[in-house]
Amino acid sequence: MRRILLVVAYDGTNYCGWQLQPNGITIEEILNRELSRLFNEEIKVIGASRTDAGVHAMGNVAVFDTNARIPAQKVAYALNVSMPSDIRIQESYEVESDFHPRHCNSRKVYEYHIYNYNFENPLRRNYCTFIHNKLDIFKMQEAAKFFVGEHDFKSFCNIHTNVKDTIRTIYRIDIDKVGHEIIITIEGNGFLYNMVRIIAGTLIEIGSGFKSVEQASDILMARNRETAGRTAQARGLMLKSIEFIS
Amino acid sequence: MRRILLVVAYDGTNYCGWQLQPNGITIEEILNRELSRLFNEEIKVIGASRTDAGVHAMGNVAVFDTNARIPAQKVAYALNVSMPSDIRIQESYEVESDFHPRHCNSRKVYEYHIYNYNFENPLRRNYCTFIHNKLDIFKMQEAAKFFVGEHDFKSFCNIHTNVKDTIRTIYRIDIDKVGHEIIITIEGNGFLYNMVRIIAGTLIEIGSGFKSVEQASDILMARNRETAGRTAQARGLMLKSIEFIS
Repeated sequence: MRRILLVVAYDGTNYCGWQLQPNGITIEEILNRELSRLFNEEIKVIGASRTDAGVHAMGNVAVFDTNARIPAQKVAYALNVSMPSDIRIQESYEVESDFHPRHCNSRKVYEYHIYNYNFENPLRRNYCTFIHNKLDIFKMQEAAKFFVGEHDFKSFCNIHTNVKDTIRTIYRIDIDKVGHEIIITIEGNGFLYNMVRIIAGTLIEIGSGFKSVEQASDILMARNRETAGRTAQARGLMLKSIEFIS
Repeated sequence: MRRILLVVAYDGTNYCGWQLQPNGITIEEILNRELSRLFNEEIKVIGASRTDAGVHAMGNVAVFDTNARIPAQKVAYALNVSMPSDIRIQESYEVESDFHPRHCNSRKVYEYHIYNYNFENPLRRNYCTFIHNKLDIFKMQEAAKFFVGEHDFKSFCNIHTNVKDTIRTIYRIDIDKVGHEIIITIEGNGFLYNMVRIIAGTLIEIGSGFKSVEQASDILMARNRETAGRTAQARGLMLKSIEFIS
């Protein structure tokens, strides 16, 4: 048996997220279906990040096992032929047979996109959240500094999860403006359920003046979801890349 | 009667272009429908640029006449409430009652987007043409220089048109690379049918090495559509802005 890794890019607009679901089509389901068809055996992928409905990715990762003799590098090309146009494999290669993308150290990079202008941009409607009031990027950058480092991010975790350990490390948060689009780039060693979207929502409220810069620190200390901002829309989120650290 | 100008942005993916058609929904049709509903009278817009099916715009222009007393600036906001999410008015203001967006001098800016990488980007699939072989941007930039200025662009005009005067002026062609995306920006005083897409298609063939840089000049001189490259896909084209010159 060989274990093959896929780097998967997708437009999440028309999917109910990554993970298999009884009602609604998911990325995992499409990958299992197309891989099973390609290899003529039942294949089940293991995903690195189970993104929510509407969330996009350029660099999500999945692994699967097969006895087939097709060169690992060719799998990306072969799969893309039959894949729907909103999913495209970016890379494929062989990994150690015990490599598990959720049970090893990694650095993940997410981008959160905000279209900040008087009027919506129809070309970016599925890839940005739209905020019409002018955001103060400097305030957002100042507030973001409180989140960098190892912290208990319980305030930034969806309450409908039973995770025990809410300590994570954020390596950097960059906030840039390109045209009318604000891009929040967050790199960390792991993220709690909805963590990036709650951080983005909180930064949007700070940039709007509804919360102060200093409140960012209070919210982090409170370890209470109710203190943080709203969960920003799924459409603005994109999993950019995952780097595995041995 | 007042004449009101609209700056119209749209994702052209799901439309049969700008102009009214018996079979298939168009941008013009949606604007007429929504304006007539808003003003409770029959309204017909006059468009500046009749873009093709699949072509996008951030700054197309339409004008219409009305006796209604709504402030012109409010029309954009009022229209956007009921408009489908892939069309968004960006601006509205009153113009002279004899202003006609196709019968006056203007400078138009188009962008043509190429995603140039081994694998397609699903997030850009509707907004770029995909070219997997690596394009030589320097060659494309050198070739583009031949097209700048006042020339007879007959070689770059779709043959299914009966336009007599094929002389146009291109003010600039910029070719930039952002990540894996190549953006060709063309500014001119007017464009023949498919002219931007045929120029883009020709530059792609030059960047691919299928045509030489010098051939760009020969093609221009030939005044013969058969000498130029293929018409590049509609999805990569976007009408960025129109400036009217009095």
